[in-house]
Amino acid sequence: MAINNTGKIFKAVGAQAVFTEQRDLRQYLTGLSTSFGYVLTDKHGTTFYTDPRYIETATKLLTPTGIKVNLFEGSLEKILKKYSEIAIPVSRTYYEECLKFGEMKLKIIDSTPAFETAMAVKEDEELDLIKKACRITDEAFSELLGRIKEGMSENEVAAELEYLMRKMGASGTSFETIVAFGENSSVPHHETGFRKLKFGDIILIDFGCKYGGYCSDCTRTFLFGDNGTHGEFKEAYSHVLNAHMLAKEHIVDGMRGRQADALARDYLCNVGLGKYFTHTLGHGVGINIHERPYISPKSCEVLQNNMVFSDEPGVYFEGKFGIRIEDTVTLCDGHVVSLTDSDKNLIVL
Amino acid sequence: MAINNTGKIFKAVGAQAVFTEQRDLRQYLTGLSTSFGYVLTDKHGTTFYTDPRYIETATKLLTPTGIKVNLFEGSLEKILKKYSEIAIPVSRTYYEECLKFGEMKLKIIDSTPAFETAMAVKEDEELDLIKKACRITDEAFSELLGRIKEGMSENEVAAELEYLMRKMGASGTSFETIVAFGENSSVPHHETGFRKLKFGDIILIDFGCKYGGYCSDCTRTFLFGDNGTHGEFKEAYSHVLNAHMLAKEHIVDGMRGRQADALARDYLCNVGLGKYFTHTLGHGVGINIHERPYISPKSCEVLQNNMVFSDEPGVYFEGKFGIRIEDTVTLCDGHVVSLTDSDKNLIVL
Repeated sequence: MAINNTGKIFKAVGAQAVFTEQRDLRQYLTGLSTSFGYVLTDKHGTTFYTDPRYIETATKLLTPTGIKVNLFEGSLEKILKKYSEIAIPVSRTYYEECLKFGEMKLKIIDSTPAFETAMAVKEDEELDLIKKACRITDEAFSELLGRIKEGMSENEVAAELEYLMRKMGASGTSFETIVAFGENSSVPHHETGFRKLKFGDIILIDFGCKYGGYCSDCTRTFLFGDNGTHGEFKEAYSHVLNAHMLAKEHIVDGMRGRQADALARDYLCNVGLGKYFTHTLGHGVGINIHERPYISPKSCEVLQNNMVFSDEPGVYFEGKFGIRIEDTVTLCDGHVVSLTDSDKNLIVL
Repeated sequence: MAINNTGKIFKAVGAQAVFTEQRDLRQYLTGLSTSFGYVLTDKHGTTFYTDPRYIETATKLLTPTGIKVNLFEGSLEKILKKYSEIAIPVSRTYYEECLKFGEMKLKIIDSTPAFETAMAVKEDEELDLIKKACRITDEAFSELLGRIKEGMSENEVAAELEYLMRKMGASGTSFETIVAFGENSSVPHHETGFRKLKFGDIILIDFGCKYGGYCSDCTRTFLFGDNGTHGEFKEAYSHVLNAHMLAKEHIVDGMRGRQADALARDYLCNVGLGKYFTHTLGHGVGINIHERPYISPKSCEVLQNNMVFSDEPGVYFEGKFGIRIEDTVTLCDGHVVSLTDSDKNLIVL
């Protein structure tokens, strides 16, 4: 994908030069993800500095977008000496580096707000990549269901799922896959392990993949056979699903994050499950698996069209079970459109 | 694994309190890897602060090691107010946070050297985990060879390999798997893509897995059939292998990083390939895929027993082909022991 967001950020920041070394921000600027590099934009244009490992790829990919590629020769002073001020993402820059810029007598301007604001609202090309990641997520989950057998470990189920996503074109997972069987589902961020699957187990799977550098995020909770002991679980499941759907139906363009969170939280409180909903309703999804907008009880962010975020209410009963139902969604023409969208009615395998 | 390195670091740092929020450093201190948390050690002991998602797991895992677990209630001031100085890893702490500590009138001491020095030399429990990750790496590669077929894409080969490692118990990859066919091998950090495998192609695979939070790292270059055009490749291959083995045979406890790098670099220079060896000989491997010791032409680090690092000479001919042969190794009783160790003679599938 030919991406060049350097002009947009340069304009939004309004500094003499914008200097960026954080990998995700560089990817946002140039579409290229490398472990090392600097992107430097001034009024004359943009240069990407990197080491010999990436010169060939960078030249091929960036030259057509108008970004120059140069070998970094080890001296920041040399490439920054002509400026009196630079913009860097201060909250993402290490202390010692800030001091180094200070020693160069550079006035520092914070580029963080410009990046966060721009990255929260997706361009069409970005949405296409997220949609593709979400499609892979759905298709892999659907194929996984037929492969889950008694006696498999959580790790084995995760391995199957990751394999399916990879075979369908994902470049990897967007975070460490969570597979939790039975009582392990009560830990919101359970570390997938060697617990083996038994008839009647609850299965919670929280997973996502990366496609073209963009993430998907999805959680499903379901039953591996019904052993007749799941009355309480089923009742809670229907409430979490109601909370998930209420948020989906009523979140609109212009609403604040806390109002969106309240849609699910108020419902769960009203049915007596509020105190078991121990996390926030959602978070933005993009190049990073957690980014703006944050949808929490405290969030004042205004939700906008083309934002992408998760809708993921969950309840957790320590030592017993947990339920989370999560889709990656976007706002389109003012309303929520689900990007992951596999069946959310309770599945009993 | 019951790990508690808090006492070791506290002693090495010599500050009133050691405060750590970086995920990898927290994992080193406690054995637990969570996306959010703070580890605070003073002369009375250690407390791990985290959010509700991790309380259950953290309490179960850390209590037996003597580390207390507390819910973080949102205020750093509250948990740090009794100190006049704290140690933090300054080079890994964001500018704004340092300012926050400054506002709390805390004298800041840098914990980075203590962490880097301690983490570079592995404890036996850590070595065991790395050895296990390396065994999985070898076994998965060996099984992969039988699965590589004409027409597969780089992504498909990566998917197979990752699946095998996962099924063998790995929790994931230690970095994004690099699979490069043919001319793509000339890019040291090629982005695995959709290029399909043809008879006679060179295949370069750089991969590793995580086990118990520790990494492995391995690269093999081989042929998918010999179409009779690979004279130059084969000659270069034997030189890279010689360089790799020279380093392995002659690196000893007490040698500096640059002397180790020179073992391979001098040889490659002598056979006219020096200018194609565009990166360094190796890097430390542990919780992080790149850590101390760094084995480069400039490195003054002294290599020691129980350090774990990569031996990875490589040569790259732009647009034609590249060769890299890499093992994860350790120093034991003064000499190199290979932890990944699958066959390095040129394989022709």
